[in-house]
Parts: sequence; structure tokens; C-alpha cells
Amino acid sequence: MSNSPNEAPAGENGPKRGFAISEFEARLTRAQTAMATAGLDGLLLTTEPEIRYFTGFLTRFWLSPTRPWFLLVPSAGKPVAVVPSIGRECLVATWLDDVRSWDSPQPEDEGVSLLASTMREIFGPKARIGIPEGPETHLRMSLGDFRRLRALVQGIEFSDATGVIKNLRMIKSSAELEKIAHACTIVSDVFEAFPGMLAAGMSEVEIFRSFKITCLERGIDDVDYLVGGTGPGGYSDIISPPSQRRVGDGDILMLDTGAVFDGYFCDFDRNFAFGHVSPESEKAYSALLDATKVGLHAARPGATCADIYRAMQRVLDKDFEGGSGVGRMGHGLGMQLTEWPSITSSDQTVLQPGMVLTLEPSIDLGGGRMMVHEENLVVTDNGAQLLTRAAPISLPVITA
Amino acid sequence: MSNSPNEAPAGENGPKRGFAISEFEARLTRAQTAMATAGLDGLLLTTEPEIRYFTGFLTRFWLSPTRPWFLLVPSAGKPVAVVPSIGRECLVATWLDDVRSWDSPQPEDEGVSLLASTMREIFGPKARIGIPEGPETHLRMSLGDFRRLRALVQGIEFSDATGVIKNLRMIKSSAELEKIAHACTIVSDVFEAFPGMLAAGMSEVEIFRSFKITCLERGIDDVDYLVGGTGPGGYSDIISPPSQRRVGDGDILMLDTGAVFDGYFCDFDRNFAFGHVSPESEKAYSALLDATKVGLHAARPGATCADIYRAMQRVLDKDFEGGSGVGRMGHGLGMQLTEWPSITSSDQTVLQPGMVLTLEPSIDLGGGRMMVHEENLVVTDNGAQLLTRAAPISLPVITA
Repeated sequence: MSNSPNEAPAGENGPKRGFAISEFEARLTRAQTAMATAGLDGLLLTTEPEIRYFTGFLTRFWLSPTRPWFLLVPSAGKPVAVVPSIGRECLVATWLDDVRSWDSPQPEDEGVSLLASTMREIFGPKARIGIPEGPETHLRMSLGDFRRLRALVQGIEFSDATGVIKNLRMIKSSAELEKIAHACTIVSDVFEAFPGMLAAGMSEVEIFRSFKITCLERGIDDVDYLVGGTGPGGYSDIISPPSQRRVGDGDILMLDTGAVFDGYFCDFDRNFAFGHVSPESEKAYSALLDATKVGLHAARPGATCADIYRAMQRVLDKDFEGGSGVGRMGHGLGMQLTEWPSITSSDQTVLQPGMVLTLEPSIDLGGGRMMVHEENLVVTDNGAQLLTRAAPISLPVITA
Repeated sequence: MSNSPNEAPAGENGPKRGFAISEFEARLTRAQTAMATAGLDGLLLTTEPEIRYFTGFLTRFWLSPTRPWFLLVPSAGKPVAVVPSIGRECLVATWLDDVRSWDSPQPEDEGVSLLASTMREIFGPKARIGIPEGPETHLRMSLGDFRRLRALVQGIEFSDATGVIKNLRMIKSSAELEKIAHACTIVSDVFEAFPGMLAAGMSEVEIFRSFKITCLERGIDDVDYLVGGTGPGGYSDIISPPSQRRVGDGDILMLDTGAVFDGYFCDFDRNFAFGHVSPESEKAYSALLDATKVGLHAARPGATCADIYRAMQRVLDKDFEGGSGVGRMGHGLGMQLTEWPSITSSDQTVLQPGMVLTLEPSIDLGGGRMMVHEENLVVTDNGAQLLTRAAPISLPVITA
């Protein structure tokens, strides 16, 4: 990175949008090397992050479920796009040379016959083609159309390519890292300024709205993910939308956001206390910060996700019961809010430089209340480096 | 609706969030009646809108692809949820009685064995279970896990339930309609005020940001979808994110937004001219408005989507070439930005009261430029009623 993350300027002075063609060439080369090792003659991709990863095609249009999009990655040469007519020009504008499209919507043949003939042309009558079939993946075409496709390309065998995709995407390029770091910096600024925008008596809906507007004003493109909660000394869940509940003395507020810059997420949270902080809350907060610090130290190249998990768990176990239901203490992030790997006791993924992770310890406070804390980091040759500005060492108290 | 859409107040004075239990009971009854007709013993649902439709469970957490969520709808009695531990309490808080969860993430058995045993318990060893396999659907679990599930419930046959789900969701309840109408009203207000916020020299990024902030300030929860473009006399595509291009004299700006209130979308656009309007632009704009008017008139109970399409096409054919690549002239909307049906020449869906549709004619202006226009309506016994405030009859011109 040209700037350390905490010095990156806000707004449109941030990293350049889009990517150089060399970035896609490097991704493709890595993919084709991995495909050769895995014995795959090609990939068939249907999901937003995967298609964007190889083409740079960024659009909110994926929100519409009407039209499938397909990308074929051959064992040599550039990917070939098979896309609905509405997206043709967008794909032609990328670095791809071969873009095919069908008039869509056309439910009776929603690109299936065009995809099949393109696959036969590129891959030949017999081939082993990878599609993601493993954890954290899904197929973004209807099951009925997938069945029709298989019938049309009968010599082609489909095989799981989750490992190929996962190993590629887990290691971020410096250009990807700049975008994630930029999102982290803007939102760190917002969280730092946020106590001045909070007051007892505000509803969760109002707090969420104010947070989103502030992020946009400071250069975030979209606040796709904002969840959180409020409650006396803790909150009852961490994935709900805001309620009409008004915060008051003794409440803890937590906001957890996945905010986006040029298609790349940050994902971290902050806690705020209203009026006063109970010793129990302060103790839980300290334990979460301690666990994060230990996790940060453990996140070195060569260590596994399970190593990080165990190191963090040891800190929490000193004073607290586990079992908040979150089920992990962090995860990858980047083009998606959450990506492989998971920081769990069983994830044996070996950390490598360029991996971007969250650390997200949680504590069950009993009585249906919990507390969580989250930071983002990048693994470097010299250990983990925070991308977020570390949370204050004491719970910020709103006295307004 | 208690208010006509254009009089609905903004912000938190809008419709009550959430739904009464009677709403879910009515949905379930309709579903079970349709399942009986289709010869289905139950449904297996995995996607956000479907699970929310039967439970009211609203969360942004679906952005994380790590954990699958399952809902089983039996032929009698309430649905049963099989969900990851992080969501257990959220589902318990809904009207459901039976919520089962597994410790997640756990890629080696991500809820699959629990889902299988629950299915065998509820449906018995032999049953015909519907899953959506048709147009506009996908399965939100990995293909590998779906294969494992099938092996664990071998007497259970899966059958396409797209028709059951589609026919339910296409007809909006009055409570659903109020939320869509509220989103339409807020965004109509924003579009009406927007010329005062625009000036030549602004970049697309700045314009988009300003639009999103204004929507949030006026009571929208999330501006999940905002696309558009600018260009001399028209724009080159309608699904791209904003660029750094600065608008100037002779440009047309189009913004197309899917903004959300309590989980329900509006989806419409507006055009703005900078400096002056060419006769060609004014003519295209008029044709789009005329086509929309004709489409609105055609959208009566008993007519088909194809009828609307043909009526609108006849207007455009008078003066313009078709073929802008959009492929349809509108679609359903509600819990998703776009839903069934499609306004195409081949969609024979018969309109019924309670359907909410967009009308979205488009014109190819040549030279890689196009113009689009979009409004939202609800079909009533007495014909279509606009949910959006109709666009100005002449292109608004920004002279600042």
C-alpha cells in the first residue's frame, strides 16, 4: 500500500476505483495454475463475487434474481462471459474479448442453450469443469436450468472447485487491500466521531440512520450491512435490524457494520455505553479487547485459524462462559462481508500474508444478554497489522 | 390502505413495522391450500424472501454466505425453522413454535443432518416436498450439502414449487402494500426535491451519494439499489455504479433506485436534463411517458403481462427502434427489487388485484445511448393505481 491505512485520505481522494488489467491477468494466471493442479479443464462461475473477481464487473443489478450470469474460465486464455442482453455492453467494456449474450428475460431458455453450446465449443465434448459446491458457496441459477444444462453437455463432468476459488480469493492483492483499508479508515473515523452524535432518548432506528448518513458523507459507497442492538448492560442479539427502542441510562449500544468502498467491505463493530458503565460491562469489554489483542498477536503466517481461536478462547475462559451462539471468533472478508476462512476450533486454514480477517470475540453475559467486539486485520510477513483503528481501551460513555 | 399513498407521512410516522400474526396465518393458509392442490406434502425453503414471508424474520445477516437457513412448511400446522445458532433467538421471537438450531459454522455438517432428521420427523419416510427450482429462484445452500441431504432423506422426493411460491408472493396483502407505497412516497418526494440539489459539474459519485443521503434523511431504511448514468442526450447503460464523470450542458442524468422500508422495495427512476434539452431527448421522454400511461391503462385485472407489453410497444414503435437490451417493460416488486412476473411479449400471467408492478419502457437512441422511464403501480379491482407520484410531463432541466 502506498499509504498506511490510518493515513489514507477520505472521500474521493481514496484509492483509485477499478483495477488495472495486470490485476486480472495475475488473478487468471493464479487460477489457471490452481486448475491445472486440481485437474480441471475449466470453471463455470455464476455468483457475483466470482464473476467480479475475474472481470471487474461491478453492479448492484445482482439484487434482481431474474437473470443468471455465467463466466467460463478456460485452462488457457481469457474468460468467456455468457450474460443477459442488459449486461452485454458492461462486460464488453471489461478486459474480456469474448462476450456472448441472449435476449433476456426468456424463462423458457434463460441462457442455458447458449451456455451449453459455448461450453462445448470451449471445452470440447469431454471435460472436467469446476463449479463451487462446497461450504459458503451456492449456485446462482435455478436448479431446473442446471439440470437442463447438464443434459445438454453430457460429456462434461462437474467437479467441486471450492478449494481453487477459496485459495485465490483468500489472498488479497495490494490493490484489494487498499480498498478494504480505505473502508476501514473511513468507518474508524465515523465510529470515533459517533459519540458526539449520540444522546440518550434516541431510538435505534434514529441511531442507525445517523450512522449510515455519516458513513456516506465521509466517502463510503454503501452501508450494506448495519446490525446491532441496545439493552441494559448488553444486547440480546447481534443480527437484528433497529427497533423503535429508545436508549437510556445503563444501556449498551453495539453497531456492527459492513460498509463498502468500490465493492470491498470492512466489517467491524463498536460498543457505546449510555450514562454509566457497570463493573460487569467494563470487565466484559476489557476481556473482549484482551482476547482481540491476543488474537492479533497469534495471527502470524504459518499459524492456523484454530490457533487464533484457542488463543482468544483462553483469555475469555478466565472469567466468562462461552456459548453466545456466534459460533466463531472471526472470519475472512473482502468482496463479501464474510468470506472463508472461519476462526473456529476446527478450521485448519494456514495463515498467509495477504489474508484479511476479522477478530470477533463474544461473551455470553447471561440473562439473554451478550457483548461482542470486532476488528479487521491483514496478515503480513511480520505478523498481523490492524486495518481498523483500535477501539478505545474503555467503553465510551455517552453522557448527553 | 388507511392513507392514499401520496398522503402517507414520511419517516417514522409511516406504516407500523413488522406484521400482525394474522398476516402470517393468512399466508400459511393460502400456502397450504396451494400445496394441497399441487400435491405437495411440504415445502423446503432456503432463501431470504421466502423465509421472511412465512416468519417475518428480517435481517441483513443474509449478506454472509457462511450459514444456510432452512424453513419447513408442512401441509398442516406452523412452519418449523432449522437455523444456525446465531439466529436461534431471532426465530424464537417470531410466531413460530418449533425452532431447531445447530452450532454453526460447522462446514463438516452445516445443519444437514439436523435438517434431514427434522424432515423425516415432520414429513415421514415418504413424501413429496416442494422446493423452488424454476425461473428467478435458486437454492441457498451448497450443492454438496444438497446432495448429502438427498442421500439422508431418500424416500423424500423433491418437486418444483416455484408456482406455489410465485402465486402467493405476487398478490400483496394490504400491509405489504402500505410498506411499498410508503417507500414509493418517500422516494417520490426525494426525486421532486432533487433538482434543487443538482448542479452542472457534479460527478456521478457525488450525485449518487447525495441521493442516498436524502433518501435516508427522509425515512428510507436502505438504498440498496441505485444505478444510473449520465451522457449527452442519453446514457449508455442502466446497471452501472456511478463514475467520476462530471455532468455538463446537454447531458441527461438517470437515477434508478430500489429503496427499502421495513424490507419492502420501491423501484423506479427519473430523468433530469442539464442546461438544455434537445428535441430528440424531449421526444423520447414524451414517448416513454405515453407508453407508461398506456401501460397503466392496460394493467387491469384479467389482462395479461403480454397485453401490457404489446400496448406499450405499440406506442414506442410509432417513432423509435426497440432493442435496448433491457428485454422487458416492467416486472413485479415487493420483498425483492424485482419479482415475478415480467412484462414481456410472452409472459401470460393474468393480472389480479394486489399485484404490484413496475412499468419500465426503454428506447434505444442509437450511438450507444438509451433512455428509460419507470413507475410503480398496484392492480386494483378498478384498474391500476400509481404508487409513485407520476414524473413531470417535461424533462426537468437543471440550469444551476
